[in-house]
Amino acid sequence: MTDETVQTMTGAEALVSTLADHGVKACFANPGTSEMHLVTALDHEPRIKSVLCLFEGVATGAADGHARVTGDPAMTLLHLGAGYLNGGANIHNARRAWTPMINVIGDHAVPHQRYDAPLTSDITGMAGPNSNWIKSADKVSTAGELAAEAWEASFGPVPGPVSLVLPADTAWLEGGRPGKARTRPSLRKPDDARIDAAAKAVKSASKPVIIINGTALTEAGLAQAARVKAAGVRVLTDTFFPRQARGAGRFIPDRMQYFAEGAMSDLGGADLMLIAGTQVPVAFFAYPGKPSLLLPEGCTPMVLGGPETDSAALLEALADALGVKKEVTDVAPLETPGMPSGDLNAMTVGASISRHMPEGAFVSDDGVSNGLPSFLMTQRARPHDWMMLTGGAIGQGMPLALGASLAAPDRKTLCISGDGAGMYTNQALWSMARESANVVNVIFVNHSYRILNIELARTGAGNPGPVAQDLLGLGHPEIDWVKLSEAQGVPAVNATNAEEFDTALERAFAADGPQLIAAHVPAR
Amino acid sequence: MTDETVQTMTGAEALVSTLADHGVKACFANPGTSEMHLVTALDHEPRIKSVLCLFEGVATGAADGHARVTGDPAMTLLHLGAGYLNGGANIHNARRAWTPMINVIGDHAVPHQRYDAPLTSDITGMAGPNSNWIKSADKVSTAGELAAEAWEASFGPVPGPVSLVLPADTAWLEGGRPGKARTRPSLRKPDDARIDAAAKAVKSASKPVIIINGTALTEAGLAQAARVKAAGVRVLTDTFFPRQARGAGRFIPDRMQYFAEGAMSDLGGADLMLIAGTQVPVAFFAYPGKPSLLLPEGCTPMVLGGPETDSAALLEALADALGVKKEVTDVAPLETPGMPSGDLNAMTVGASISRHMPEGAFVSDDGVSNGLPSFLMTQRARPHDWMMLTGGAIGQGMPLALGASLAAPDRKTLCISGDGAGMYTNQALWSMARESANVVNVIFVNHSYRILNIELARTGAGNPGPVAQDLLGLGHPEIDWVKLSEAQGVPAVNATNAEEFDTALERAFAADGPQLIAAHVPAR
Repeated sequence: MTDETVQTMTGAEALVSTLADHGVKACFANPGTSEMHLVTALDHEPRIKSVLCLFEGVATGAADGHARVTGDPAMTLLHLGAGYLNGGANIHNARRAWTPMINVIGDHAVPHQRYDAPLTSDITGMAGPNSNWIKSADKVSTAGELAAEAWEASFGPVPGPVSLVLPADTAWLEGGRPGKARTRPSLRKPDDARIDAAAKAVKSASKPVIIINGTALTEAGLAQAARVKAAGVRVLTDTFFPRQARGAGRFIPDRMQYFAEGAMSDLGGADLMLIAGTQVPVAFFAYPGKPSLLLPEGCTPMVLGGPETDSAALLEALADALGVKKEVTDVAPLETPGMPSGDLNAMTVGASISRHMPEGAFVSDDGVSNGLPSFLMTQRARPHDWMMLTGGAIGQGMPLALGASLAAPDRKTLCISGDGAGMYTNQALWSMARESANVVNVIFVNHSYRILNIELARTGAGNPGPVAQDLLGLGHPEIDWVKLSEAQGVPAVNATNAEEFDTALERAFAADGPQLIAAHVPAR
Repeated sequence: MTDETVQTMTGAEALVSTLADHGVKACFANPGTSEMHLVTALDHEPRIKSVLCLFEGVATGAADGHARVTGDPAMTLLHLGAGYLNGGANIHNARRAWTPMINVIGDHAVPHQRYDAPLTSDITGMAGPNSNWIKSADKVSTAGELAAEAWEASFGPVPGPVSLVLPADTAWLEGGRPGKARTRPSLRKPDDARIDAAAKAVKSASKPVIIINGTALTEAGLAQAARVKAAGVRVLTDTFFPRQARGAGRFIPDRMQYFAEGAMSDLGGADLMLIAGTQVPVAFFAYPGKPSLLLPEGCTPMVLGGPETDSAALLEALADALGVKKEVTDVAPLETPGMPSGDLNAMTVGASISRHMPEGAFVSDDGVSNGLPSFLMTQRARPHDWMMLTGGAIGQGMPLALGASLAAPDRKTLCISGDGAGMYTNQALWSMARESANVVNVIFVNHSYRILNIELARTGAGNPGPVAQDLLGLGHPEIDWVKLSEAQGVPAVNATNAEEFDTALERAFAADGPQLIAAHVPAR
């Protein structure tokens, strides 16, 4: 690039082109006045696909989904502190999924910031807690360099969201310079001494288990997990994980149970808990008189490596140290159920999904209390990848599916979502329609925050009176998901029994572009 | 209350009953597992009406609207840091409206917090910047007392949102005690010396103006503003304000223009700018080469009192000091336009609103580029109150209307919203339907972020190419607002010409419960 070119580059152009130079391919955006020069820069950057989202929570969830599919960070474009807040819950979820993500947050021009205009807010204060890295490009000469730094920082040591604040004057002024090329940081490799110690501990344990997440859940990682299991170690994944390769030809690990009492009973007797690519498991919520740490009495935890580690490599090294042969035979056969019939419920939905989900599909699971049967019934379905809500902030399902689908447009993405979860970010449907995203949305319509009815009982908060029932119920009025979907350009149908759903799902997978099925399942 | 009763009170009950003791009458909620005991406490508290919102941004916007009508803070119930983030943009708006608001944010049980469970986040870090006051009730014995402190802190000195974090174990443990009764803080009274100095300055100024907000915009405050005008001082309100009494019988102040260049030209020649109940006006955004502070050359600013002040009392004292008689005759006559005809646009919509809006209505204005004509054309309509988006984070209109309507159920609330703004928090429609709220929603459907097309030109960001056009346009697909509304239980109609709209609006005001009119107006 000649000096002349550099002279005519705005800060916005320096930022955008630097991210494109580093392989960023998508920007999920909801711009405002302070981001107009970023919009213009994106207009001139053919390497980045810009996708308008009608709510920032859709943008951040989509960036997460895009990155889970590609492994590279996507960019978001958010309008000052208020735009950040709107996108914040799905940034929280992305942080919990260790997803690299570059949130570009527009701000007032630097000289304007001191006047406390209506949209002024403490962006770094609010965005800091969920940012692996956060800086403001207060001088145009720094915009490109900070973009490169942000990209690098999104990889960690533990990958996650970063925040790059771009004041409007930095965006509009000329004098931007591309940031110098960075190399992509790698996940940490196994520590030999720790692997040897773990292998010894396994040999002397009576009931060893290993909890895995991260690269251990890729197809290659799971092959190594199968070898570890062959040495007598029970393999469990975290309850929630960013992505797991599943279905025919892949090893089937167990999965940590969600409820603490179930998990503790399931782990009962374990005397060694190895950890690979995650942390010692913790109950999702605390309950009166129940444990927080999901570590049975007398069980020794041993961390081989946290989320900053290449856990697939950890498993391979451990299997080698345990002397397990390289060949893996413990993989799922292809096995799909027959056509379900009768009542529609989480089980029959799961059966249809297992029957019809095409090879190579991505699943975005925000199914809350109805997701588990679909998960279990697809263990031996055609090969696919399953993506979970990792941070517990519901409303991620459809945005994540949008982003995943745009990253893999030739494959099918299935979104399963509770109706309560789906309402949070229903605007994702519009972006799916606009982009002709190949997403099949299955909404479990039970007119209830059903999980909360379960939790109300478990927390011992007492029998729900009318006010409590009202606070947990989505009836009165019942939401018409078909209309809600069609209103935003996504064809939709109702399904009220197993046969109807099975037919609708088969058709939806065969169709081009987004589809929605409102699956009417019982509330109890 | 006997000791025995105190012994059996949970922390959640102490918090909720203390707020009820202090006059809190509504809780806008989206609870999760960590808030189950708060739900139970609300179930047992008949003095607080609990309203479920399907997205936290609806809850916080509704709490703002409720407080703008009643003058008392409403309560929200938010689910940990993620719930706070979802509600954050409308909390930002409430902070900019100086609205008292008590956000109760559930958190993990204190002993669970150290384990970094999936929903753990730095709540005080994220919520701090938009909180006038923030504390966490980490011991059950403090829950009631902190609730009383939160209530008091919501009144200021400058009123605004406060955040009370409630860990789940504080909520569920017994040993809660009601907080001791606090008295409601008052706004600051006028400073005599400053009033005298201002009166002197007015007498020697050639073109004095006064910028007003706060209590100056009540009916009584505006009567005092009319007296100040009678002394030769031009009276302008801020561009955006929490609430203004308007229509027949009320004084009509001027309003600061939105665009900086327009405002500066309008204020040209002013040599004294008094400020009552607000701050020296600032441009909403910065633009290359344009001023931030809206203070003409040679104009002296003089702050009589900021938002912590009773600006109605300031005006009265100033009018007295200027020797103006007490009688006020400069008020609007009742004057409504005839039936509009022909094309539907912001002007003809405004005419119909002026014709049909009933006495005592509240207006929630999130109309963005289409709101101004309705504002201007209702200056002489039946008496009503107008509420603005003060913080610039669009998506406040329908939630604010929901809360206002529930605070004044026997009056009509009109929400005017852009289609882009309305999509942000469309879930408000469902709560309106559930609560049979008397809200008439008018959505300006132009399939465009029209304001951004204007701003793109003003910022000099260049001619929009196809990507930029896509990032500012809401067409492809067009949103069907009638279906979106009906999907959530709110009856809706399309209006495509002035006559259709006029008839639809008349019917909507006559109907019970929420209504929606999709007003198809041109994009340019």
